Amino acid sequence: MTIYGGIEAGGTKFVCAVGSELGEIQREVRFPTTSPDACIRSSIEFLQSAQKECGPLAGVGIASFGPLDPNPASPMFGYITTTPKKGWAHTDLVGPIRNALGVPVGFDTDVNGAAMGEYRWGAARGLDTFVYITIGTGIGGGAMVNGSLVHGLLHPEMGHVLVSHDRVEDPFDGICPYHGDCLEGLASGPAIELRWKDKAEHLAPEHPAWELEAKYLARGIVPQIYILSPQRILLGGGVMEQQHLFPKVRRHVRDILNGYIQAAAILDDIDQYILPPGLGNRAGVLGAIALAQLAVGSL
Amino acid sequence: MTIYGGIEAGGTKFVCAVGSELGEIQREVRFPTTSPDACIRSSIEFLQSAQKECGPLAGVGIASFGPLDPNPASPMFGYITTTPKKGWAHTDLVGPIRNALGVPVGFDTDVNGAAMGEYRWGAARGLDTFVYITIGTGIGGGAMVNGSLVHGLLHPEMGHVLVSHDRVEDPFDGICPYHGDCLEGLASGPAIELRWKDKAEHLAPEHPAWELEAKYLARGIVPQIYILSPQRILLGGGVMEQQHLFPKVRRHVRDILNGYIQAAAILDDIDQYILPPGLGNRAGVLGAIALAQLAVGSL
Repeated sequence: MTIYGGIEAGGTKFVCAVGSELGEIQREVRFPTTSPDACIRSSIEFLQSAQKECGPLAGVGIASFGPLDPNPASPMFGYITTTPKKGWAHTDLVGPIRNALGVPVGFDTDVNGAAMGEYRWGAARGLDTFVYITIGTGIGGGAMVNGSLVHGLLHPEMGHVLVSHDRVEDPFDGICPYHGDCLEGLASGPAIELRWKDKAEHLAPEHPAWELEAKYLARGIVPQIYILSPQRILLGGGVMEQQHLFPKVRRHVRDILNGYIQAAAILDDIDQYILPPGLGNRAGVLGAIALAQLAVGSL
Repeated sequence: MTIYGGIEAGGTKFVCAVGSELGEIQREVRFPTTSPDACIRSSIEFLQSAQKECGPLAGVGIASFGPLDPNPASPMFGYITTTPKKGWAHTDLVGPIRNALGVPVGFDTDVNGAAMGEYRWGAARGLDTFVYITIGTGIGGGAMVNGSLVHGLLHPEMGHVLVSHDRVEDPFDGICPYHGDCLEGLASGPAIELRWKDKAEHLAPEHPAWELEAKYLARGIVPQIYILSPQRILLGGGVMEQQHLFPKVRRHVRDILNGYIQAAAILDDIDQYILPPGLGNRAGVLGAIALAQLAVGSL
Protein backbone atom coordinates (compact mmCIF):
# COMPACT_ATOMS: atom_id res chain seq x y z
CA MET A 1 0.00 0.00 0.00
CA THR A 2 1.27 3.46 -0.91
CA ILE A 3 0.91 6.29 1.62
CA TYR A 4 0.39 9.96 0.80
CA GLY A 5 0.16 13.17 2.76
CA GLY A 6 -2.60 15.71 2.23
CA ILE A 7 -2.94 19.29 3.44
CA GLU A 8 -6.21 21.17 3.16
CA ALA A 9 -5.14 24.77 3.67
CA GLY A 10 -8.27 26.74 4.47
CA GLY A 11 -8.74 30.35 5.42
CA THR A 12 -9.88 29.44 8.93
CA LYS A 13 -8.37 25.99 9.51
CA PHE A 14 -5.79 23.55 8.23
CA VAL A 15 -6.56 19.84 7.99
CA CYS A 16 -3.57 17.55 7.50
CA ALA A 17 -3.87 13.83 6.91
CA VAL A 18 -2.00 10.76 5.86
CA GLY A 19 -3.87 8.18 3.82
CA SER A 20 -3.67 5.39 1.30
CA GLU A 21 -4.24 5.31 -2.45
CA LEU A 22 -7.72 4.01 -1.62
CA GLY A 23 -8.57 7.22 0.20
CA GLU A 24 -8.43 5.60 3.64
CA ILE A 25 -7.26 8.17 6.16
CA GLN A 26 -4.86 6.83 8.79
CA ARG A 27 -3.88 9.95 10.72
CA GLU A 28 -5.43 13.39 10.78
CA VAL A 29 -4.91 16.69 12.59
CA ARG A 30 -6.71 20.06 12.49
CA PHE A 31 -5.48 23.44 13.64
CA PRO A 32 -6.56 27.05 13.15
CA THR A 33 -5.04 29.12 10.35
CA THR A 34 -2.70 31.54 12.10
CA SER A 35 0.53 32.73 10.43
CA PRO A 36 2.01 31.02 7.37
CA ASP A 37 5.16 30.08 9.29
CA ALA A 38 3.28 28.45 12.12
CA CYS A 39 0.90 26.59 9.82
CA ILE A 40 3.67 25.31 7.56
CA ARG A 41 5.70 24.21 10.58
CA SER A 42 2.76 22.37 12.13
CA SER A 43 1.98 20.68 8.81
CA ILE A 44 5.56 19.46 8.43
CA GLU A 45 5.73 18.22 12.01
CA PHE A 46 2.52 16.26 11.58
CA LEU A 47 3.60 14.69 8.30
CA GLN A 48 7.04 13.78 9.61
CA SER A 49 5.67 12.19 12.73
CA ALA A 50 2.87 10.41 10.82
CA GLN A 51 5.27 8.83 8.39
CA LYS A 52 7.26 7.38 11.26
CA GLU A 53 4.13 5.48 12.23
CA CYS A 54 2.51 4.81 8.85
CA GLY A 55 5.50 4.44 6.55
CA PRO A 56 7.23 6.80 4.13
CA LEU A 57 5.10 9.20 2.12
CA ALA A 58 5.24 8.83 -1.68
CA GLY A 59 4.09 12.42 -2.12
CA VAL A 60 2.16 15.29 -0.58
CA GLY A 61 -0.81 17.22 -1.97
CA ILE A 62 -1.88 20.70 -0.92
CA ALA A 63 -5.40 21.96 -1.62
CA SER A 64 -5.33 25.60 -0.65
CA PHE A 65 -7.39 28.75 -0.49
CA GLY A 66 -6.32 31.21 -3.17
CA PRO A 67 -5.80 32.89 -5.47
CA LEU A 68 -2.73 30.79 -6.06
CA ASP A 69 -0.35 29.70 -8.80
CA PRO A 70 -0.95 26.04 -9.76
CA ASN A 71 1.21 26.10 -12.89
CA PRO A 72 4.30 23.89 -12.38
CA ALA A 73 6.08 25.79 -15.18
CA SER A 74 5.69 29.15 -13.42
CA PRO A 75 8.33 30.66 -11.10
CA MET A 76 5.56 31.31 -8.59
CA PHE A 77 4.26 27.73 -8.65
CA GLY A 78 3.23 26.69 -5.19
CA TYR A 79 2.50 30.21 -3.93
CA ILE A 80 -0.67 31.73 -2.61
CA THR A 81 -0.58 34.98 -4.59
CA THR A 82 -2.73 38.06 -4.00
CA THR A 83 -5.01 37.00 -1.18
CA PRO A 84 -6.42 39.79 1.00
CA LYS A 85 -5.92 37.46 4.00
CA LYS A 86 -3.50 39.27 6.31
CA GLY A 87 0.06 37.95 6.22
CA TRP A 88 -0.68 35.34 3.56
CA ALA A 89 -0.10 37.17 0.27
CA HIS A 90 2.87 35.75 -1.68
CA THR A 91 3.30 32.74 0.61
CA ASP A 92 5.28 29.80 -0.72
CA LEU A 93 3.50 26.68 0.51
CA VAL A 94 5.07 24.05 -1.73
CA GLY A 95 8.74 25.01 -1.33
CA PRO A 96 9.20 24.48 2.43
CA ILE A 97 7.12 21.31 2.44
CA ARG A 98 8.99 19.79 -0.48
CA ASN A 99 12.29 20.68 1.16
CA ALA A 100 11.30 19.17 4.49
CA LEU A 101 9.75 15.97 3.14
CA GLY A 102 11.85 15.42 0.02
CA VAL A 103 8.93 14.10 -2.08
CA PRO A 104 6.86 15.48 -4.97
CA VAL A 105 4.25 18.02 -3.84
CA GLY A 106 1.00 18.59 -5.74
CA PHE A 107 -0.71 21.96 -5.43
CA ASP A 108 -4.09 23.25 -6.47
CA THR A 109 -7.07 25.21 -5.23
CA ASP A 110 -9.12 23.78 -2.38
CA VAL A 111 -12.04 23.39 -4.77
CA ASN A 112 -10.05 21.72 -7.55
CA GLY A 113 -8.67 19.43 -4.85
CA ALA A 114 -12.17 18.65 -3.65
CA ALA A 115 -13.23 17.96 -7.24
CA MET A 116 -10.35 15.52 -7.57
CA GLY A 117 -11.35 13.81 -4.31
CA GLU A 118 -14.95 13.48 -5.51
CA TYR A 119 -13.69 12.08 -8.81
CA ARG A 120 -11.58 9.44 -7.09
CA TRP A 121 -13.80 8.39 -4.21
CA GLY A 122 -16.97 10.48 -4.11
CA ALA A 123 -20.00 11.56 -6.08
CA ALA A 124 -18.17 12.10 -9.38
CA ARG A 125 -16.79 8.60 -9.84
CA GLY A 126 -17.12 7.47 -13.44
CA LEU A 127 -17.57 11.02 -14.80
CA ASP A 128 -14.98 13.07 -16.61
CA THR A 129 -16.59 16.53 -16.82
CA PHE A 130 -18.19 18.04 -13.73
CA VAL A 131 -18.06 20.95 -11.32
CA TYR A 132 -17.71 21.14 -7.56
CA ILE A 133 -18.97 24.35 -5.95
CA THR A 134 -18.65 25.30 -2.32
CA ILE A 135 -21.02 27.81 -0.77
CA GLY A 136 -19.84 28.96 2.64
CA THR A 137 -17.80 31.92 3.85
CA GLY A 138 -17.06 32.45 0.19
CA ILE A 139 -18.23 30.81 -3.00
CA GLY A 140 -15.75 28.98 -5.20
CA GLY A 141 -15.67 26.19 -7.68
CA GLY A 142 -13.38 23.60 -9.14
CA ALA A 143 -13.92 21.76 -12.38
CA MET A 144 -12.77 18.74 -14.26
CA VAL A 145 -13.09 18.53 -18.04
CA ASN A 146 -12.34 15.32 -19.94
CA GLY A 147 -10.63 13.91 -16.84
CA SER A 148 -8.27 16.79 -16.05
CA LEU A 149 -8.63 19.73 -13.69
CA VAL A 150 -9.31 23.14 -15.20
CA HIS A 151 -6.56 25.75 -14.88
CA GLY A 152 -6.11 27.74 -18.06
CA LEU A 153 -5.03 31.29 -17.34
CA LEU A 154 -5.08 30.81 -13.53
CA HIS A 155 -7.87 28.70 -12.12
CA PRO A 156 -11.66 29.04 -12.04
CA GLU A 157 -13.12 31.75 -9.81
CA MET A 158 -16.72 30.72 -10.15
CA GLY A 159 -17.99 32.60 -7.13
CA HIS A 160 -17.63 35.94 -8.84
CA VAL A 161 -20.03 35.44 -11.75
CA LEU A 162 -22.53 38.26 -11.95
CA VAL A 163 -26.11 37.20 -11.38
CA SER A 164 -29.22 39.12 -12.15
CA HIS A 165 -30.22 41.12 -9.06
CA ASP A 166 -33.66 42.68 -8.76
CA ARG A 167 -33.26 45.45 -6.19
CA VAL A 168 -37.00 45.72 -5.70
CA GLU A 169 -37.16 42.09 -4.62
CA ASP A 170 -33.81 42.26 -2.78
CA PRO A 171 -32.45 45.73 -1.96
CA PHE A 172 -29.35 44.22 -0.31
CA ASP A 173 -26.22 45.65 -1.99
CA GLY A 174 -24.05 42.55 -1.76
CA ILE A 175 -20.74 42.27 0.08
CA CYS A 176 -18.09 41.43 -2.51
CA PRO A 177 -15.33 44.05 -2.17
CA TYR A 178 -14.65 43.79 -5.91
CA HIS A 179 -18.11 43.45 -7.42
CA GLY A 180 -20.73 44.15 -4.79
CA ASP A 181 -23.53 41.94 -5.99
CA CYS A 182 -21.78 39.06 -7.73
CA LEU A 183 -22.84 35.55 -6.69
CA GLU A 184 -20.49 35.51 -3.69
CA GLY A 185 -21.59 39.02 -2.77
CA LEU A 186 -25.26 38.01 -2.68
CA ALA A 187 -25.32 34.33 -1.73
CA SER A 188 -22.35 33.47 0.51
CA GLY A 189 -22.97 32.68 4.18
CA PRO A 190 -21.92 36.18 5.36
CA ALA A 191 -24.23 37.76 2.75
CA ILE A 192 -27.18 35.75 4.07
CA GLU A 193 -26.30 36.74 7.63
CA LEU A 194 -25.97 40.44 6.86
CA ARG A 195 -29.14 40.57 4.75
CA TRP A 196 -31.37 38.82 7.28
CA LYS A 197 -29.58 39.94 10.47
CA ASP A 198 -29.27 36.38 11.65
CA LYS A 199 -26.93 33.46 11.09
CA ALA A 200 -27.93 31.29 8.13
CA GLU A 201 -28.19 28.20 10.31
CA HIS A 202 -30.79 29.97 12.51
CA LEU A 203 -33.16 30.64 9.61
CA ALA A 204 -35.99 28.09 9.35
CA PRO A 205 -36.40 26.16 6.08
CA GLU A 206 -39.58 28.11 5.24
CA HIS A 207 -37.87 31.50 5.76
CA PRO A 208 -37.92 33.56 2.51
CA ALA A 209 -34.12 33.71 2.75
CA TRP A 210 -33.87 30.25 1.26
CA GLU A 211 -36.03 30.76 -1.79
CA LEU A 212 -33.95 33.84 -2.61
CA GLU A 213 -30.73 31.95 -1.92
CA ALA A 214 -31.77 29.08 -4.20
CA LYS A 215 -32.64 31.55 -6.94
CA TYR A 216 -29.21 33.18 -6.81
CA LEU A 217 -27.43 29.85 -6.69
CA ALA A 218 -29.40 28.68 -9.74
CA ARG A 219 -28.44 31.87 -11.56
CA GLY A 220 -24.80 31.08 -10.79
CA ILE A 221 -25.09 27.42 -11.74
CA VAL A 222 -26.87 27.82 -15.08
CA PRO A 223 -23.93 29.59 -16.79
CA GLN A 224 -21.77 26.66 -15.76
CA ILE A 225 -24.18 24.33 -17.53
CA TYR A 226 -24.04 26.44 -20.69
CA ILE A 227 -20.27 26.91 -20.64
CA LEU A 228 -18.84 23.66 -19.28
CA SER A 229 -21.67 21.23 -20.02
CA PRO A 230 -20.98 19.30 -16.80
CA GLN A 231 -22.27 15.75 -16.36
CA ARG A 232 -22.97 16.55 -12.70
CA ILE A 233 -22.87 19.51 -10.32
CA LEU A 234 -21.81 19.01 -6.71
CA LEU A 235 -22.73 21.66 -4.16
CA GLY A 236 -20.84 21.63 -0.88
CA GLY A 237 -19.88 24.04 1.89
CA GLY A 238 -21.59 25.19 5.07
CA VAL A 239 -24.59 26.84 3.44
CA MET A 240 -25.47 23.62 1.58
CA GLU A 241 -25.73 21.75 4.87
CA GLN A 242 -29.29 23.09 4.65
CA GLN A 243 -30.45 20.02 2.71
CA HIS A 244 -33.78 21.64 1.88
CA LEU A 245 -31.88 23.96 -0.47
CA PHE A 246 -31.22 21.19 -2.99
CA PRO A 247 -34.79 20.75 -4.29
CA LYS A 248 -35.21 24.53 -4.40
CA VAL A 249 -32.00 25.00 -6.40
CA ARG A 250 -32.93 22.19 -8.81
CA ARG A 251 -36.35 23.75 -9.45
CA HIS A 252 -34.88 27.18 -10.20
CA VAL A 253 -32.21 25.69 -12.48
CA ARG A 254 -34.89 23.90 -14.48
CA ASP A 255 -37.01 27.06 -14.62
CA ILE A 256 -34.14 29.14 -15.98
CA LEU A 257 -33.05 26.54 -18.55
CA ASN A 258 -36.68 26.28 -19.68
CA GLY A 259 -36.16 23.03 -21.54
CA TYR A 260 -33.32 24.32 -23.68
CA ILE A 261 -30.78 21.65 -22.74
CA GLN A 262 -32.33 18.45 -24.06
CA ALA A 263 -30.57 16.02 -21.79
CA ALA A 264 -32.32 13.38 -19.73
CA ALA A 265 -29.96 14.11 -16.83
CA ILE A 266 -31.61 17.52 -16.48
CA LEU A 267 -35.10 16.94 -17.88
CA ASP A 268 -35.86 13.66 -16.09
CA ASP A 269 -33.24 13.09 -13.46
CA ILE A 270 -32.16 16.41 -11.99
CA ASP A 271 -32.22 14.90 -8.47
CA GLN A 272 -29.10 12.99 -9.51
CA TYR A 273 -27.63 15.91 -11.44
CA ILE A 274 -27.31 18.48 -8.66
CA LEU A 275 -26.05 16.68 -5.59
CA PRO A 276 -24.12 17.10 -2.34
CA PRO A 277 -20.49 15.93 -2.39
CA GLY A 278 -20.13 12.22 -1.68
CA LEU A 279 -17.25 12.87 0.72
CA GLY A 280 -19.05 15.59 2.70
CA ASN A 281 -16.63 17.78 4.59
CA ARG A 282 -13.76 15.35 3.90
CA ALA A 283 -13.72 16.22 0.19
CA GLY A 284 -11.00 18.79 0.87
CA VAL A 285 -8.45 16.67 2.68
CA LEU A 286 -9.13 13.57 0.58
CA GLY A 287 -8.77 15.82 -2.45
CA ALA A 288 -5.35 16.86 -1.16
CA ILE A 289 -4.36 13.20 -0.98
CA ALA A 290 -5.60 12.73 -4.55
CA LEU A 291 -3.47 15.74 -5.60
CA ALA A 292 -0.48 13.95 -4.06
CA GLN A 293 -1.20 10.90 -6.20
CA LEU A 294 -1.49 13.12 -9.25
CA ALA A 295 1.86 14.77 -8.41
CA VAL A 296 3.69 11.46 -8.27
CA GLY A 297 2.11 10.39 -11.55
CA SER A 298 0.04 7.53 -10.13
CA LEU A 299 -3.31 8.87 -11.40
CA MET B 1 1.05 14.47 -47.64
CA THR B 2 -2.18 13.23 -46.10
CA ILE B 3 -5.50 14.55 -47.45
CA TYR B 4 -8.68 15.08 -45.43
CA GLY B 5 -12.20 16.15 -46.18
CA GLY B 6 -14.03 18.78 -44.18
CA ILE B 7 -17.70 19.74 -44.09
CA GLU B 8 -18.88 22.90 -42.37
CA ALA B 9 -22.61 22.31 -42.04
CA GLY B 10 -24.17 25.68 -41.34
CA GLY B 11 -27.78 26.70 -40.96
CA THR B 12 -27.70 28.77 -44.15
CA LYS B 13 -24.83 27.26 -46.16
CA PHE B 14 -22.57 24.24 -46.40
CA VAL B 15 -18.86 24.61 -47.11
CA CYS B 16 -17.03 21.45 -48.16
CA ALA B 17 -13.30 21.27 -48.67
CA VAL B 18 -10.40 18.95 -49.15
CA GLY B 19 -7.11 19.90 -47.58
CA SER B 20 -3.82 18.73 -46.17
CA GLU B 21 -2.64 18.12 -42.63
CA LEU B 22 -1.07 21.58 -42.86
CA GLY B 23 -4.46 23.19 -43.30
CA GLU B 24 -3.88 23.99 -46.97
CA ILE B 25 -7.19 23.84 -48.80
CA GLN B 26 -7.02 22.27 -52.26
CA ARG B 27 -10.66 22.16 -53.36
CA GLU B 28 -13.67 23.92 -51.92
CA VAL B 29 -17.38 24.21 -52.70
CA ARG B 30 -20.25 26.15 -51.13
CA PHE B 31 -23.96 25.58 -51.47
CA PRO B 32 -27.08 26.73 -49.63
CA THR B 33 -28.54 24.59 -46.85
CA THR B 34 -31.68 23.09 -48.35
CA SER B 35 -32.90 19.61 -47.33
CA PRO B 36 -30.70 17.13 -45.46
CA ASP B 37 -30.84 14.65 -48.36
CA ALA B 38 -29.74 17.20 -50.93
CA CYS B 39 -26.95 18.61 -48.73
CA ILE B 40 -25.59 15.19 -47.82
CA ARG B 41 -25.70 14.10 -51.46
CA SER B 42 -23.88 17.24 -52.64
CA SER B 43 -21.25 16.82 -49.92
CA ILE B 44 -20.59 13.21 -50.90
CA GLU B 45 -20.40 14.07 -54.60
CA PHE B 46 -17.91 16.84 -53.93
CA LEU B 47 -15.71 14.68 -51.71
CA GLN B 48 -15.76 11.75 -54.13
CA SER B 49 -14.86 13.91 -57.08
CA ALA B 50 -12.20 15.84 -55.11
CA GLN B 51 -10.45 12.68 -54.02
CA LYS B 52 -10.17 11.57 -57.65
CA GLU B 53 -8.11 14.70 -58.25
CA CYS B 54 -6.30 15.14 -54.93
CA GLY B 55 -5.85 11.54 -53.77
CA PRO B 56 -7.70 9.35 -51.29
CA LEU B 57 -9.08 10.96 -48.13
CA ALA B 58 -7.73 9.62 -44.83
CA GLY B 59 -10.83 10.85 -43.01
CA VAL B 60 -13.65 13.37 -43.01
CA GLY B 61 -14.63 15.89 -40.36
CA ILE B 62 -18.04 17.50 -39.96
CA ALA B 63 -18.48 20.73 -37.99
CA SER B 64 -22.21 21.23 -37.79
CA PHE B 65 -24.90 23.46 -36.42
CA GLY B 66 -26.69 21.83 -33.50
CA PRO B 67 -27.75 20.76 -31.04
CA LEU B 68 -26.10 17.50 -31.97
CA ASP B 69 -24.71 14.35 -30.44
CA PRO B 70 -20.90 14.34 -30.51
CA ASN B 71 -20.46 11.32 -28.22
CA PRO B 72 -19.01 8.38 -30.21
CA ALA B 73 -20.34 5.99 -27.54
CA SER B 74 -23.93 7.15 -28.01
CA PRO B 75 -26.42 5.46 -30.38
CA MET B 76 -27.27 8.93 -31.73
CA PHE B 77 -23.64 9.87 -32.42
CA GLY B 78 -23.41 11.83 -35.63
CA TYR B 79 -26.97 13.15 -35.51
CA ILE B 80 -28.27 16.67 -35.39
CA THR B 81 -30.82 16.24 -32.61
CA THR B 82 -33.57 18.70 -31.63
CA THR B 83 -32.95 21.65 -33.92
CA PRO B 84 -35.95 23.85 -34.68
CA LYS B 85 -34.62 24.12 -38.26
CA LYS B 86 -37.35 22.68 -40.49
CA GLY B 87 -36.64 19.17 -41.77
CA TRP B 88 -33.34 18.85 -39.94
CA ALA B 89 -34.28 17.43 -36.53
CA HIS B 90 -32.90 13.91 -35.98
CA THR B 91 -30.73 13.97 -39.12
CA ASP B 92 -27.90 11.46 -39.32
CA LEU B 93 -24.97 13.30 -40.90
CA VAL B 94 -22.13 10.93 -40.08
CA GLY B 95 -23.74 7.63 -41.16
CA PRO B 96 -24.33 8.31 -44.87
CA ILE B 97 -20.99 10.06 -45.28
CA ARG B 98 -19.06 7.27 -43.58
CA ASN B 99 -20.89 4.70 -45.71
CA ALA B 100 -20.18 6.55 -48.94
CA LEU B 101 -16.53 7.36 -48.26
CA GLY B 102 -15.50 4.38 -46.15
CA VAL B 103 -13.23 6.39 -43.86
CA PRO B 104 -13.43 7.57 -40.20
CA VAL B 105 -15.71 10.59 -39.78
CA GLY B 106 -15.21 13.14 -36.99
CA PHE B 107 -18.21 15.10 -35.79
CA ASP B 108 -18.60 18.10 -33.52
CA THR B 109 -20.33 21.45 -33.25
CA ASP B 110 -19.40 24.16 -35.74
CA VAL B 111 -17.90 26.18 -32.88
CA ASN B 112 -15.90 23.31 -31.39
CA GLY B 113 -14.67 22.65 -34.92
CA ALA B 114 -13.69 26.29 -35.31
CA ALA B 115 -11.90 26.13 -31.95
CA MET B 116 -9.95 23.10 -33.18
CA GLY B 117 -9.04 24.93 -36.40
CA GLU B 118 -7.82 27.96 -34.43
CA TYR B 119 -5.81 25.65 -32.18
CA ARG B 120 -4.10 23.99 -35.13
CA TRP B 121 -3.51 26.90 -37.49
CA GLY B 122 -5.01 30.09 -36.11
CA ALA B 123 -5.02 32.45 -33.15
CA ALA B 124 -4.95 29.74 -30.47
CA ARG B 125 -1.72 28.04 -31.48
CA GLY B 126 0.38 27.17 -28.44
CA LEU B 127 -2.55 27.44 -26.01
CA ASP B 128 -4.43 24.58 -24.40
CA THR B 129 -7.41 26.31 -22.74
CA PHE B 130 -9.42 28.89 -24.66
CA VAL B 131 -12.86 29.69 -26.01
CA TYR B 132 -14.12 30.51 -29.48
CA ILE B 133 -17.39 32.44 -29.63
CA THR B 134 -19.32 33.32 -32.75
CA ILE B 135 -21.74 36.24 -32.76
CA GLY B 136 -23.94 36.24 -35.83
CA THR B 137 -27.41 34.91 -36.60
CA GLY B 138 -27.04 33.11 -33.28
CA ILE B 139 -24.43 33.14 -30.55
CA GLY B 140 -22.50 29.98 -29.78
CA GLY B 141 -19.19 28.94 -28.38
CA GLY B 142 -16.71 26.12 -28.46
CA ALA B 143 -14.02 25.51 -25.91
CA MET B 144 -10.82 23.61 -25.42
CA VAL B 145 -9.54 22.76 -21.94
CA ASN B 146 -6.11 21.23 -21.39
CA GLY B 147 -5.88 20.45 -25.10
CA SER B 148 -9.20 18.66 -25.58
CA LEU B 149 -12.58 19.94 -26.76
CA VAL B 150 -15.30 20.38 -24.14
CA HIS B 151 -18.31 18.07 -24.40
CA GLY B 152 -19.44 16.82 -21.00
CA LEU B 153 -23.18 16.27 -20.87
CA LEU B 154 -23.73 17.46 -24.48
CA HIS B 155 -21.66 20.37 -25.67
CA PRO B 156 -21.38 24.02 -24.61
CA GLU B 157 -24.31 26.31 -25.42
CA MET B 158 -22.65 29.54 -24.44
CA GLY B 159 -25.05 31.80 -26.30
CA HIS B 160 -27.82 31.19 -23.81
CA VAL B 161 -26.20 32.54 -20.65
CA LEU B 162 -28.41 35.06 -18.94
CA VAL B 163 -26.97 38.56 -18.82
CA SER B 164 -28.07 41.43 -16.70
CA HIS B 165 -30.63 43.48 -18.64
CA ASP B 166 -31.64 46.95 -17.53
CA ARG B 167 -35.02 47.56 -19.14
CA VAL B 168 -34.82 51.28 -18.50
CA GLU B 169 -31.62 51.48 -20.55
CA ASP B 170 -32.83 48.88 -23.06
CA PRO B 171 -36.57 48.11 -23.13
CA PHE B 172 -36.07 45.56 -25.93
CA ASP B 173 -37.49 42.19 -24.80
CA GLY B 174 -34.97 39.96 -26.53
CA ILE B 175 -35.74 37.35 -29.18
CA CYS B 176 -34.67 33.98 -27.81
CA PRO B 177 -37.71 31.68 -28.06
CA TYR B 178 -36.56 29.87 -24.90
CA HIS B 179 -35.27 32.65 -22.70
CA GLY B 180 -36.22 36.01 -24.19
CA ASP B 181 -33.34 38.12 -23.00
CA CYS B 182 -30.42 35.71 -22.76
CA LEU B 183 -27.19 36.77 -24.50
CA GLU B 184 -28.35 35.45 -27.87
CA GLY B 185 -31.75 37.04 -27.35
CA LEU B 186 -30.21 40.46 -26.76
CA ALA B 187 -26.97 40.53 -28.73
CA SER B 188 -27.25 38.33 -31.85
CA GLY B 189 -27.39 39.96 -35.27
CA PRO B 190 -31.18 39.59 -35.57
CA ALA B 191 -31.61 41.11 -32.08
CA ILE B 192 -29.59 44.17 -33.11
CA GLU B 193 -31.62 44.50 -36.28
CA LEU B 194 -34.98 44.22 -34.55
CA ARG B 195 -34.03 46.62 -31.74
CA TRP B 196 -32.68 49.36 -34.00
CA LYS B 197 -34.89 48.72 -37.05
CA ASP B 198 -31.86 48.51 -39.29
CA LYS B 199 -29.33 45.90 -40.29
CA ALA B 200 -26.31 45.76 -37.98
CA GLU B 201 -23.93 46.45 -40.86
CA HIS B 202 -25.78 49.71 -41.60
CA LEU B 203 -25.24 51.14 -38.12
CA ALA B 204 -22.30 53.55 -37.90
CA PRO B 205 -19.52 52.80 -35.38
CA GLU B 206 -20.64 55.72 -33.18
CA HIS B 207 -24.26 54.51 -33.08
CA PRO B 208 -25.33 53.72 -29.47
CA ALA B 209 -26.16 50.21 -30.65
CA TRP B 210 -22.50 49.25 -30.42
CA GLU B 211 -21.83 50.41 -26.89
CA LEU B 212 -24.87 48.42 -25.75
CA GLU B 213 -23.78 45.42 -27.84
CA ALA B 214 -20.28 45.50 -26.34
CA LYS B 215 -21.74 45.68 -22.84
CA TYR B 216 -23.89 42.59 -23.39
CA LEU B 217 -21.04 40.68 -25.00
CA ALA B 218 -18.79 41.53 -22.05
CA ARG B 219 -21.48 40.31 -19.65
CA GLY B 220 -21.53 37.04 -21.58
CA ILE B 221 -17.75 36.73 -21.74
CA VAL B 222 -16.93 37.43 -18.10
CA PRO B 223 -18.64 34.27 -16.78
CA GLN B 224 -16.48 32.31 -19.20
CA ILE B 225 -13.39 33.88 -17.65
CA TYR B 226 -14.58 32.95 -14.15
CA ILE B 227 -15.65 29.41 -15.07
CA LEU B 228 -13.15 28.22 -17.71
CA SER B 229 -10.20 30.52 -17.01
CA PRO B 230 -9.33 30.68 -20.73
CA GLN B 231 -5.88 31.77 -21.87
CA ARG B 232 -7.51 33.61 -24.76
CA ILE B 233 -10.98 34.46 -26.07
CA LEU B 234 -11.66 34.51 -29.80
CA LEU B 235 -14.71 36.36 -31.08
CA GLY B 236 -15.85 35.57 -34.60
CA GLY B 237 -19.05 35.68 -36.66
CA GLY B 238 -20.74 38.34 -38.75
CA VAL B 239 -21.36 40.84 -35.93
CA MET B 240 -17.67 40.87 -34.99
CA GLU B 241 -16.74 41.98 -38.49
CA GLN B 242 -17.36 45.40 -36.92
CA GLN B 243 -13.74 45.67 -35.78
CA HIS B 244 -14.51 48.70 -33.62
CA LEU B 245 -16.40 46.36 -31.30
CA PHE B 246 -13.20 44.76 -30.01
CA PRO B 247 -11.86 47.72 -27.99
CA LYS B 248 -15.35 48.36 -26.62
CA VAL B 249 -15.76 44.74 -25.52
CA ARG B 250 -12.31 44.70 -23.93
CA ARG B 251 -13.06 47.85 -21.95
CA HIS B 252 -16.35 46.48 -20.61
CA VAL B 253 -14.75 43.15 -19.69
CA ARG B 254 -12.08 44.96 -17.69
CA ASP B 255 -14.71 47.16 -16.03
CA ILE B 256 -16.77 44.18 -14.92
CA LEU B 257 -13.78 42.17 -13.66
CA ASN B 258 -12.65 45.25 -11.73
CA GLY B 259 -9.12 43.94 -11.16
CA TYR B 260 -10.22 40.69 -9.59
CA ILE B 261 -8.36 38.36 -11.95
CA GLN B 262 -4.72 39.19 -11.30
CA ALA B 263 -3.31 38.02 -14.60
CA ALA B 264 -1.08 40.12 -16.81
CA ALA B 265 -2.94 38.81 -19.87
CA ILE B 266 -6.00 40.74 -18.70
CA LEU B 267 -4.51 43.59 -16.68
CA ASP B 268 -1.76 44.61 -19.10
CA ASP B 269 -2.36 42.88 -22.37
CA ILE B 270 -6.07 42.54 -23.00
CA ASP B 271 -5.58 43.55 -26.66
CA GLN B 272 -3.99 40.13 -27.13
CA TYR B 273 -6.49 38.37 -24.85
CA ILE B 274 -9.74 39.11 -26.70
CA LEU B 275 -9.06 38.70 -30.40
CA PRO B 276 -10.64 37.90 -33.76
CA PRO B 277 -10.09 34.35 -35.05
CA GLY B 278 -6.82 33.95 -36.92
CA LEU B 279 -8.54 31.99 -39.69
CA GLY B 280 -11.34 34.52 -40.21
CA ASN B 281 -14.35 32.97 -41.90
CA ARG B 282 -12.36 29.87 -42.80
CA ALA B 283 -12.16 28.74 -39.17
CA GLY B 284 -15.23 26.56 -39.73
CA VAL B 285 -14.12 24.54 -42.71
CA LEU B 286 -10.51 24.31 -41.56
CA GLY B 287 -11.87 23.20 -38.20
CA ALA B 288 -13.77 20.44 -39.97
CA ILE B 289 -10.51 19.28 -41.53
CA ALA B 290 -8.90 19.33 -38.08
CA LEU B 291 -11.81 17.23 -36.78
CA ALA B 292 -11.02 14.72 -39.54
CA GLN B 293 -7.42 14.53 -38.33
CA LEU B 294 -8.67 14.02 -34.78
CA ALA B 295 -11.00 11.23 -35.94
CA VAL B 296 -8.19 9.29 -37.58
CA GLY B 297 -6.02 9.70 -34.50
CA SER B 298 -3.37 11.90 -36.09
CA LEU B 299 -3.77 14.82 -33.63
